[in-house]
Amino acid sequence: MKNLAKISGLAVALAVAALPVLAQDAPAEAAAPAMVPTDTVWILNTLLFLIGGFLVFWMAAGFAMLEAGLVRSKNVTMQLLKNVMLFSIACTMYYLIGYNLMYPLGSWSIGSDETGGYLGAFAVAVLEAVGVGADAVDDYSYASTGSDFFFQVMFCATTASIVSGTLAERIKLWPFLIFTIVLTAIIYPIVGSWKWGGGFLDSQFGFLDFAGSTVVHSTGGWAALAGVLVLGPRLGKYKDGRVHPMPGSNLTLATLGTFILWLGWFGFNGASQLAMGSIGDAADISRIFVNTNAAAAGGAIAAMLMTQVLYKKPDLTMVLNGALAGLVSITAEPLTPSIGAATLIGALGGVIVVFAIPMLDKMKIDDVVGAIPVHLICGIWGTLAVPLTNSDATFGGQIISIVIVGAFTFTVSLIVWFILKAVMGIRAPEEDEMMGLDKAELGMEAYPEFKV
Amino acid sequence: MKNLAKISGLAVALAVAALPVLAQDAPAEAAAPAMVPTDTVWILNTLLFLIGGFLVFWMAAGFAMLEAGLVRSKNVTMQLLKNVMLFSIACTMYYLIGYNLMYPLGSWSIGSDETGGYLGAFAVAVLEAVGVGADAVDDYSYASTGSDFFFQVMFCATTASIVSGTLAERIKLWPFLIFTIVLTAIIYPIVGSWKWGGGFLDSQFGFLDFAGSTVVHSTGGWAALAGVLVLGPRLGKYKDGRVHPMPGSNLTLATLGTFILWLGWFGFNGASQLAMGSIGDAADISRIFVNTNAAAAGGAIAAMLMTQVLYKKPDLTMVLNGALAGLVSITAEPLTPSIGAATLIGALGGVIVVFAIPMLDKMKIDDVVGAIPVHLICGIWGTLAVPLTNSDATFGGQIISIVIVGAFTFTVSLIVWFILKAVMGIRAPEEDEMMGLDKAELGMEAYPEFKV
Amino acid sequence: MKNLAKISGLAVALAVAALPVLAQDAPAEAAAPAMVPTDTVWILNTLLFLIGGFLVFWMAAGFAMLEAGLVRSKNVTMQLLKNVMLFSIACTMYYLIGYNLMYPLGSWSIGSDETGGYLGAFAVAVLEAVGVGADAVDDYSYASTGSDFFFQVMFCATTASIVSGTLAERIKLWPFLIFTIVLTAIIYPIVGSWKWGGGFLDSQFGFLDFAGSTVVHSTGGWAALAGVLVLGPRLGKYKDGRVHPMPGSNLTLATLGTFILWLGWFGFNGASQLAMGSIGDAADISRIFVNTNAAAAGGAIAAMLMTQVLYKKPDLTMVLNGALAGLVSITAEPLTPSIGAATLIGALGGVIVVFAIPMLDKMKIDDVVGAIPVHLICGIWGTLAVPLTNSDATFGGQIISIVIVGAFTFTVSLIVWFILKAVMGIRAPEEDEMMGLDKAELGMEAYPEFKV
Repeated sequence: MKNLAKISGLAVALAVAALPVLAQDAPAEAAAPAMVPTDTVWILNTLLFLIGGFLVFWMAAGFAMLEAGLVRSKNVTMQLLKNVMLFSIACTMYYLIGYNLMYPLGSWSIGSDETGGYLGAFAVAVLEAVGVGADAVDDYSYASTGSDFFFQVMFCATTASIVSGTLAERIKLWPFLIFTIVLTAIIYPIVGSWKWGGGFLDSQFGFLDFAGSTVVHSTGGWAALAGVLVLGPRLGKYKDGRVHPMPGSNLTLATLGTFILWLGWFGFNGASQLAMGSIGDAADISRIFVNTNAAAAGGAIAAMLMTQVLYKKPDLTMVLNGALAGLVSITAEPLTPSIGAATLIGALGGVIVVFAIPMLDKMKIDDVVGAIPVHLICGIWGTLAVPLTNSDATFGGQIISIVIVGAFTFTVSLIVWFILKAVMGIRAPEEDEMMGLDKAELGMEAYPEFKV
Repeated sequence: MKNLAKISGLAVALAVAALPVLAQDAPAEAAAPAMVPTDTVWILNTLLFLIGGFLVFWMAAGFAMLEAGLVRSKNVTMQLLKNVMLFSIACTMYYLIGYNLMYPLGSWSIGSDETGGYLGAFAVAVLEAVGVGADAVDDYSYASTGSDFFFQVMFCATTASIVSGTLAERIKLWPFLIFTIVLTAIIYPIVGSWKWGGGFLDSQFGFLDFAGSTVVHSTGGWAALAGVLVLGPRLGKYKDGRVHPMPGSNLTLATLGTFILWLGWFGFNGASQLAMGSIGDAADISRIFVNTNAAAAGGAIAAMLMTQVLYKKPDLTMVLNGALAGLVSITAEPLTPSIGAATLIGALGGVIVVFAIPMLDKMKIDDVVGAIPVHLICGIWGTLAVPLTNSDATFGGQIISIVIVGAFTFTVSLIVWFILKAVMGIRAPEEDEMMGLDKAELGMEAYPEFKV
Repeated sequence: MKNLAKISGLAVALAVAALPVLAQDAPAEAAAPAMVPTDTVWILNTLLFLIGGFLVFWMAAGFAMLEAGLVRSKNVTMQLLKNVMLFSIACTMYYLIGYNLMYPLGSWSIGSDETGGYLGAFAVAVLEAVGVGADAVDDYSYASTGSDFFFQVMFCATTASIVSGTLAERIKLWPFLIFTIVLTAIIYPIVGSWKWGGGFLDSQFGFLDFAGSTVVHSTGGWAALAGVLVLGPRLGKYKDGRVHPMPGSNLTLATLGTFILWLGWFGFNGASQLAMGSIGDAADISRIFVNTNAAAAGGAIAAMLMTQVLYKKPDLTMVLNGALAGLVSITAEPLTPSIGAATLIGALGGVIVVFAIPMLDKMKIDDVVGAIPVHLICGIWGTLAVPLTNSDATFGGQIISIVIVGAFTFTVSLIVWFILKAVMGIRAPEEDEMMGLDKAELGMEAYPEFKV
């Protein structure tokens, strides 16, 4: 029995010795319930894009309300129509051409992921099959292609929205819509591919632009700038050497539009984290939400203080543009700043618009809603601010990328606008502009019963 | 010691032999982190309904803004009041009667799941207890009853919203609200039960109606059509053999309403997937979001092109109705179409409304906001389109279901409207209609300071 | 060999004996796929706060629209500006001071968690590091600090929003904004800490206030009441012993604002569950969504019936306030009531406002939008109603807490308002008020083209 005891003791020892093997599993087992299962990660990432996408969709309504509120009542129907149509066109063109041009997944028409991609792939967007399984998804480490498309198509539409406000009240409908086709099918997707599609700005210059201060907002801004230079200012805006204010017809709608955009921006920046399936990602999204909000608040406060100091009266439209300026400014890097830094980055954006808006007027650039100061100039500022809080970015890489995107977008846009001007004319006839585009071009007033 | 070594060797062998038992578990362990835990599935499904539900709630605001924008300013307060009240009534009636009438869970008052259910159960809605555990939930394979109720009650309210626009500007408040009670407590829940409650349309005809082109939109449309036939057109609408346009008083609000509905529709169609706890479900929801959006865009583009061609001027209200027509058209099957097919299904919806709206006017059916073309006619179109992309549906099953739902809803609605007309009158006095219902019935103007 | 067999048998026995240790794990393994992994819980909780937070953010737009719709058109720009600025200020002050004052996590400046905390910690808010891991999060059993901050900062802003409506049309901009600084940096965070920060109301009185009928809504209401007493009524409101109605300029916007608030309230109450990572929590959130909606519906219906009975005409603004009253009433306990009870709790709130609004007028308390009846009085009602459905609450504990919060907030607010009045004056000059604050203080009209 002694022997047996010994043996049994040994066996116990062996069994115990075997346990560490199990014990090694055991922590894994204990840890397993802690870790997020891979399928759940994929679902959460997908959910992030869907939520982010519907919030960015909502920005289309925001632009529509903002612009309808800031134009004169005789051009409101036209501005609403343009906003609905540019969104619809953007969605269709991005499906037909834009998505694969922007995300060629290595299949570049010119260039490659390694050498730097320049021109993406030409193909319509195709989603995963109905009821796809884990083994058949396009990218098991990411999210559903449909959710990615949904999120990205909204960014494309946002870029187009930026242009419509600047050119309001005197551009004809059809040339504007044709430009929108080019912008959403070709220009924006190509610029987007250079950074987010893994193109040469990303691979060669280490360009960082988290949610698109440059890729979305400046791109829209450059296209708007090219358009306004070809189009010219509204009749009577700069007469007798003076700037004649043409106040927006409905500041409640403009304010509503700003709140809508502010809300949508949580999706715009937050879902640009691109992942929600880990603690780190969820915490990062939280930081982004907080910073995005802080920057908007900072922009509004700064714009109010500046207008109080400069004009002795706080200016609501400046405050609204200040909030939007804060949002654009934080968009290039909403993750790394502290709340305080985000507030300051946004505040500086608010200061910028207060100076930039009259500066444009001095240059006789008639930007009806202030889209160029907000989206282009603050887009540049936000992109330049990235290295201040993120050491992975360099001022050199940021600047060269800003220049390349600007040169490309501005040049191509200018060419397209000139062609449109030559072929069909882009400016409404003088008498139409005086009467208002609503009656003249559409025969439909936005507020037909109200005396103006 | 040799012996011992042998024994120890044996014990090791045994311990190793024991390992496969563990090893069999091991793959399960390895696989476990990939699969979504059952509780997580339940939570994600619940979350889907909550997000979908608040998005569909938002559609109530969309209908309110759309209708307030499309009626004349003298009837805006009334239209707003009707919209707030119909929503509130729908929520209360669906709680008291509708929910269990629609979802009897096999407890049919007439019929059964097997033979086909015709009339559901009569009981108030009861939710799971506070802090319910996995063992006590109503359906561990689904989602919380509260989230299901929340999502479904919003569909009921949507159905009621469809009616109010058609009958605007001349129906009295109280008969309208009483009809809403019948519609949301009885008519809609019964129709809904036939398909989604597992009733006879589902079990006997294989009727497919994903998110309710027929069950929700056509049902609302049939009720509206019955109402407008009993009510008659607005004074002066069809005078001297001509159609006199009565333009909406605020197209910005109408556009805002359309954007709100568009946003809400992502919840309407997306959460009708009814599950988000697997990769297949999440990918499907993504498809639905994309297709819903594409159909709306297609509807808007088609309506704009059609009005440009037919009238030489793009028509904003047609474009708005075109987008909504696209949304209704894709609602019966937002999952199986490709993005291109979804765009086309929506576009055809947009074409339909452009023809249907003047056609109704020729028939002297005065539908103030175009709800019958959008919700009824495009609801039929969308339901008929299902077999085009989903081989599980048959044209026969779809057509017979459309006819049955239409015959039931139209007949019952007609009876209720006639009873209301006989008992209390449904039409505002002529002088009230001329003055506007706001002043006459409510003594409260929507825009009291503005000269009209 | 026998011996060996014995030994081997023993070893088997031992190995088998070792199995139960594994077997004990085995059920855990089998169960593991059912249970929600800890990391997923954390992510879902975080997601709840982010969704809840953006919904509550949206309430800021709701207040802006509601108030812009209920003031006269000559004061709309000012009201919009106040709403944008109070939100921006609240976000900044809560970051700088409020958050840690409200959530000292035991580091009380006065008091402690055990003895009861009275004054929280002074420090700026700091979020978790970028890409934080499970081992480094602030609270692994909860959610990301960023998401918590995001949710809580929106509550702070909501409190400030309540004040602006009451004082509209005659308070000067700057004193209002300075009061907002004090309210959002000091008053609200201190009150909040007493309950939600684990302070003395929570630890000593067992005070229950789920989402803040008292902590948020009454606090805002008390601050508004103190302000209106110091400020006085609008010129001409109570002239010649009669109440002169001053109807809101845009009821569509007021209705839109109400719908926005209603939507936002799902986040306000729902995410106050503070957790979504278990079946019980997800089911509870569902209950809360349903009950919140039911209470709003009940409030609207009750207000409509009451105004029909009392005035023979349903009153839209009363109905809107009735819905809001229902929402405030259910906020103290949206979880435990049945749907029916929630409807009734909301309905009683609707009845209360119908009586309270004229009552305040009799006391010559000129509350422009009805914020005191809705938020203060119904906040008290909702807090008192908690013990009706939740046996953990006592009427004593609720009443004493209401009194303490009211005494503190009202007194401190009164002092601040008096100081502001003495130092800089809070009331606009008489001629400014007559002309409207938009022209007089801001030089910018909300609807410059429309004749009034």
